[in-house]
Amino acid sequence: MHITLDFSSRVPLYLQIKAYLSEEIYTGSLEANSRLPSTRKLAAELNVNRITIANAYSELESEGLIYGRSGSGTYVSPGKKRALDTGQSPEDYPLWQQRLARESDTATWWQSEAAAALESNPDVISFSSGMGAEELFPADDYRKALQSVLQQDRGDALGYGELAGYYPLRATISQILSEQGITANPGNILITSGSQQAMNLVSRLLLRPGDTILLEEPSYSSAIDLFRSLDTNLVGVPVDENGMQVEHVEELLQKTHPALIYTIPNFHNPTGACLSSARRRLLVDLADRYNVPILEDEFVCDLRYEGNPRPALKALDSRGNIIYMSTFSKILMPGLRIGYLVASGPVFEQLLLSKRVNDLSTSELIQRALREYIAVGRYETHLNRARRLFRHRRDTMIAAMLRQLPEGSSWQIPQGGLFIWLRLPEGVTTTGLIPAALKEKVAFTPGSLFAVSDQYESYIRLNFSCQPPELIEEGIRRLGRAVRSILKE
Amino acid sequence: MHITLDFSSRVPLYLQIKAYLSEEIYTGSLEANSRLPSTRKLAAELNVNRITIANAYSELESEGLIYGRSGSGTYVSPGKKRALDTGQSPEDYPLWQQRLARESDTATWWQSEAAAALESNPDVISFSSGMGAEELFPADDYRKALQSVLQQDRGDALGYGELAGYYPLRATISQILSEQGITANPGNILITSGSQQAMNLVSRLLLRPGDTILLEEPSYSSAIDLFRSLDTNLVGVPVDENGMQVEHVEELLQKTHPALIYTIPNFHNPTGACLSSARRRLLVDLADRYNVPILEDEFVCDLRYEGNPRPALKALDSRGNIIYMSTFSKILMPGLRIGYLVASGPVFEQLLLSKRVNDLSTSELIQRALREYIAVGRYETHLNRARRLFRHRRDTMIAAMLRQLPEGSSWQIPQGGLFIWLRLPEGVTTTGLIPAALKEKVAFTPGSLFAVSDQYESYIRLNFSCQPPELIEEGIRRLGRAVRSILKE
Repeated sequence: MHITLDFSSRVPLYLQIKAYLSEEIYTGSLEANSRLPSTRKLAAELNVNRITIANAYSELESEGLIYGRSGSGTYVSPGKKRALDTGQSPEDYPLWQQRLARESDTATWWQSEAAAALESNPDVISFSSGMGAEELFPADDYRKALQSVLQQDRGDALGYGELAGYYPLRATISQILSEQGITANPGNILITSGSQQAMNLVSRLLLRPGDTILLEEPSYSSAIDLFRSLDTNLVGVPVDENGMQVEHVEELLQKTHPALIYTIPNFHNPTGACLSSARRRLLVDLADRYNVPILEDEFVCDLRYEGNPRPALKALDSRGNIIYMSTFSKILMPGLRIGYLVASGPVFEQLLLSKRVNDLSTSELIQRALREYIAVGRYETHLNRARRLFRHRRDTMIAAMLRQLPEGSSWQIPQGGLFIWLRLPEGVTTTGLIPAALKEKVAFTPGSLFAVSDQYESYIRLNFSCQPPELIEEGIRRLGRAVRSILKE
Repeated sequence: MHITLDFSSRVPLYLQIKAYLSEEIYTGSLEANSRLPSTRKLAAELNVNRITIANAYSELESEGLIYGRSGSGTYVSPGKKRALDTGQSPEDYPLWQQRLARESDTATWWQSEAAAALESNPDVISFSSGMGAEELFPADDYRKALQSVLQQDRGDALGYGELAGYYPLRATISQILSEQGITANPGNILITSGSQQAMNLVSRLLLRPGDTILLEEPSYSSAIDLFRSLDTNLVGVPVDENGMQVEHVEELLQKTHPALIYTIPNFHNPTGACLSSARRRLLVDLADRYNVPILEDEFVCDLRYEGNPRPALKALDSRGNIIYMSTFSKILMPGLRIGYLVASGPVFEQLLLSKRVNDLSTSELIQRALREYIAVGRYETHLNRARRLFRHRRDTMIAAMLRQLPEGSSWQIPQGGLFIWLRLPEGVTTTGLIPAALKEKVAFTPGSLFAVSDQYESYIRLNFSCQPPELIEEGIRRLGRAVRSILKE
């Protein structure tokens, strides 16, 4: 190997060697899976210390460019050559692929450079998360549950399992639901890979391109993305502090004949609003009178910090119009990917069939461990801890907002959940705020992501659960400075 | 509680008590979550031994009708009342549900009474499994991998993770693939929830109702179910011992303008055939000339027992026409639900977006543990063990078939995989064979499940990997008796 080293350079030797080898790998001069010289040999050849070579190799390995096989040396990783894919334009692909490229309009916030800059910088204080605080994830308890399931059930925990989900888990969920006034036989519960899959199964079953969906305006961004991907028309119903303004729904039902109503009645994402009991009854009644299914998305219903719980729409449903969905992702662990659907009647059978063609079943192991975790009472303890902690963080954030945000900012105090929906002072738009936020190192979710038809350019969503109090204080201080810097312009 | 016991009956007292309580729960006389008397109290009341009551409660608990809370007594499980759902006919549901009921034609083999009778009876020797031997599932090794991931990565292992999948797992898969001659950058690999989801994502992206799909005749039943659920037209290409008869494909391309070709080139399910190298080249060439994507389903490619591996279609693909999918379900653990797709060009970006709206991501924890498991070299060891074991079982089954099956039975010897496709002697149909198999206590998969247009009433699929040799011997003996009993009729 002929590597010319500059011994007088300020670039350390190991980085010079690394740079040379990277280039050789990327250009394909060093072929995939070819063997590199041993550190001893290359050190001798280049007349450097063996540690220098070891450091270079270790850098390359950490970047995935080379890999070691124990006892047999170091090799070039496959697929590193900048071939085919890099720089190849859509026109180089077959026609059927070019058509796909034209159909695509994928530039979302999360793929933007600003989002990448905000989310990847460890100095940024981010309130943009969609889930509960990561440090609360009960990793140890869940590890124990996994352990005991794998020791007790062994192979059974690693097979396909039942299509609707592990029966004891469904029985456990049935119990949890009954405490919320929902009578659900385990036979009417379908375990899904997170609530996104639940939404997806329901949507694909009930919706055809061109169908209309009524939903809160604003609403959950991933639901909107899903509905849009199915070429449906979205009609927003405005939201106030008591949730969806159901008074407007009857007129919309008559005008638009929707195929589905999608709603988040508790601690609505993003506004945090709770649907009033009277509106709940009216909505269930309308669904019945107008023959429209409702998908009820209960993503954090257990996270109530004050006030009285309202009945779930499903608990008011005597006819089978409500399809209820919930998840363990937001308050337990997103990485589990466990959600569930509750429905009765023919729609349940059809959902089962959809589940089968979609992905056969949800991980049996994860389900069994989750059931074990809940059964030993750890879930209840976890929830109580989460409620105490998140309530305190909500209060911390509200107090900081009162102190730090300029006049003209406004928000409602949510009785539960994870989010505060902040209206920025007049003259401040999200688009304008992002560069200032980048500079101040604070992140949030732009309101436009939750827009159905309105734009929400003057709103942002803040997750109050995911940062410790001192970072909430500091983050809101930064946000205040960022907002003020726009007002001064 | 007024329970009338018959002390002279041959029905044990605890079963009489159990029967009484079950009835009370099912009719709702005992309400959900109401507390049952303590064993002590009820024993005194009925004048029986306390153990008798404990036994009755334990029976009820094992049937899920009641549940205990430690320290606070025994309660009636919710949702047991035979309400709404039981016996409610579709007409009792809203109109939108009645429409769904009409669309449905769901009676598949797996939902039939015969299948239930065969699969639930522990005395039946079943060759109907679609996966590798359960006793091989490396539960302990995987448990260790989970342990170490949860200890090292903690919360990181429980978050959402990257949309395309855990990068180091994709890098590891890229290495595995390069050993099979497939150059796949980790950036072109998408982790899915099993290969069923991979198929589902590709199908929903590329197919519209009314589109035509070319595929082997017969083919994998769950692929057929998926394609049919999307209202596509299936056109079968006959299969011989060298796989799909690609010679017929050009004419079909011209006649039917398919939107997709779906193929299982290695150890085809259900026939076990391997596509010859010449046919592989021809097929890739045709896809290119006719602008048709190919979905290459490599479900057990690592399970070759003899003969030389043929190049993957993906390895022959210079243009981006081939979408490759594989899985860890069949040879490792179905319960993991980990599969993957390899594709390049615009289609890959679109698949990523579909993955997001489908279920956001695949379990991060499961992915990390799988990567750990493979990285420490356990996967390779496991594969070698599986190959040795399955090869031996295949040979055992073939030898038993030669001895036990009547003349007129015929099959090919597969060079790998899991399945033997057995043609029954003339005059024997699957429909006729099932009652005899029920009597003899042996199970298989009826050929009709794999039918695209042909019927395969005279074929069955046998999984040779999932029973130990002595049960293979005995099972094939039973099958022989069952077949002969039809011939004698």
